[in-house]
Amino acid sequence: MTHLIGVDWGTSSFRAALMSSDGRVLSDISADAGITRVTGASFGEVLDAHVGPWRSAHPDARLMLSGMIGSRNGWVEAPYARAPAGAADLAEALVEIPGNSGAAPILLVPGVDISPEAGAPDVMRGEETQIIGSDAVNVARATVVAPGSHTKWVQVEGGRIAGFRTYMSGEVFHALRSHTILSAFATEQGARDDDAFRSGVQRFADPAAQADLLAEIFSARTLPLTGQMAPESVSDYLSGLVIGAEVRHGLAAGQPAAITLIGSDELTARYDLALQVFDCDCTIEPPGAAARGQFRIAKMAGIV
Amino acid sequence: MTHLIGVDWGTSSFRAALMSSDGRVLSDISADAGITRVTGASFGEVLDAHVGPWRSAHPDARLMLSGMIGSRNGWVEAPYARAPAGAADLAEALVEIPGNSGAAPILLVPGVDISPEAGAPDVMRGEETQIIGSDAVNVARATVVAPGSHTKWVQVEGGRIAGFRTYMSGEVFHALRSHTILSAFATEQGARDDDAFRSGVQRFADPAAQADLLAEIFSARTLPLTGQMAPESVSDYLSGLVIGAEVRHGLAAGQPAAITLIGSDELTARYDLALQVFDCDCTIEPPGAAARGQFRIAKMAGIV
Repeated sequence: MTHLIGVDWGTSSFRAALMSSDGRVLSDISADAGITRVTGASFGEVLDAHVGPWRSAHPDARLMLSGMIGSRNGWVEAPYARAPAGAADLAEALVEIPGNSGAAPILLVPGVDISPEAGAPDVMRGEETQIIGSDAVNVARATVVAPGSHTKWVQVEGGRIAGFRTYMSGEVFHALRSHTILSAFATEQGARDDDAFRSGVQRFADPAAQADLLAEIFSARTLPLTGQMAPESVSDYLSGLVIGAEVRHGLAAGQPAAITLIGSDELTARYDLALQVFDCDCTIEPPGAAARGQFRIAKMAGIV
Repeated sequence: MTHLIGVDWGTSSFRAALMSSDGRVLSDISADAGITRVTGASFGEVLDAHVGPWRSAHPDARLMLSGMIGSRNGWVEAPYARAPAGAADLAEALVEIPGNSGAAPILLVPGVDISPEAGAPDVMRGEETQIIGSDAVNVARATVVAPGSHTKWVQVEGGRIAGFRTYMSGEVFHALRSHTILSAFATEQGARDDDAFRSGVQRFADPAAQADLLAEIFSARTLPLTGQMAPESVSDYLSGLVIGAEVRHGLAAGQPAAITLIGSDELTARYDLALQVFDCDCTIEPPGAAARGQFRIAKMAGIV
């Protein structure tokens, strides 16, 4: 009855789950202990501080980490697995970190990379485990969209990550909002304005508009300047423009397949709205995909 | 024999020309006295400090200002002239600022705005005068590209500004380079790398690539991370991506017409390179377009 402790350890967040040997989540923890916030302690110490009680209660438990903890700036760098990659490929490529005093090694899930014939290489780290934990691996073909600073659009075929592309939409939005002339209006505080968001998305859903992001964003200045938009709506409108540009390209670039959204409640709700403007249905994956993915990979590796 | 003193007074720069009554530039000045740099003195005082000697030598000289000095943050706000607008329209819409002690008023060239049926309003201030001073007004149809923080693509028909669009390419480049994860490489100093610039542009010149800016920019991280690009080339590559995205859209959106570039030597050279990647010829307008435009407008207004 081996337990599994799975940790989705990202740049800014740390989420751990204690799972039974049949994959049920018995307990979970979320902490403000992303890898960039770890200072003055080793990663091992931070890990012990959060999951130590689980390890004491279940000395047989195995530990599996996924996310940026396996990057160059993390604990140990885990080489990428090359797409196409599924649970079996990730299980084979697990990297071991020696455990404390005779304990079984900690397992690190590698990221996934891709090197298309035309175009630049692309990488993910953390999303691969969430995808393996999602329902998208149970159908012949699916598209997973994982919104964030660097949103991933992922083609999943036969349960494996077949191809993907990164859109820097989250970071671009924040850079535009805070570090350009648009900040004059876009940093105004207001209630969430879904209509403004949708009108931004709509600019890219209408093929006749031939919208281009570099040009459209200037309207986040001219509309409030000419009194055609309330300043406190500008931030949501700008978000709609950036996400609209991404969704237009994501839908055009991939062959259409059922879309699954994986991410925080706030971001998946926003992408759901955007996809509706494009008349696209999607499914929002329930929370816990990373833990489910860690369990599937552990099962495939034969450690639970 | 009235002289004309023309000042192209922008956000960060101040350029003045003393012209004879037949439009020859007799002398010119460039100063670090853009409107955002004027503190602790009035605009009138700054103007006097720079062109006072010309006014003393030519008491009959008329003064004409163009650029952001006519904006809400400038000296006096000059309402926009609505496109289509040519020299005669701008001459009619000149705004007067009272001169010193009985001197003739100073004339302020309005910006130009446009309010398309579909899409957001757009504005320019300063470029209209440069365009009127360029050769683009002497042919039936021309496209003017004025690169900068906010690059303008302008359709000129029969000597009038018929339509235009603003691309925030310059600002977006700087925000991406300095305020995103790309800064790790993009702020490395290196010699100017035209090949890297061209390879960025090329991603958008190749229709088969179906490139999207939000996705392509991530390659400015993955290429150096995987050793496929020297870190010191990343800034020029990123510049090529942003300008390439703009040029692709600018060429697709406008009906093709001969392209004239107006701007600094550095930026027009860069856009010339980008247009070559798209197999497009262009003409670079010689320096002094603003002064030539001010003279044409003054002539049309009957003040020289």
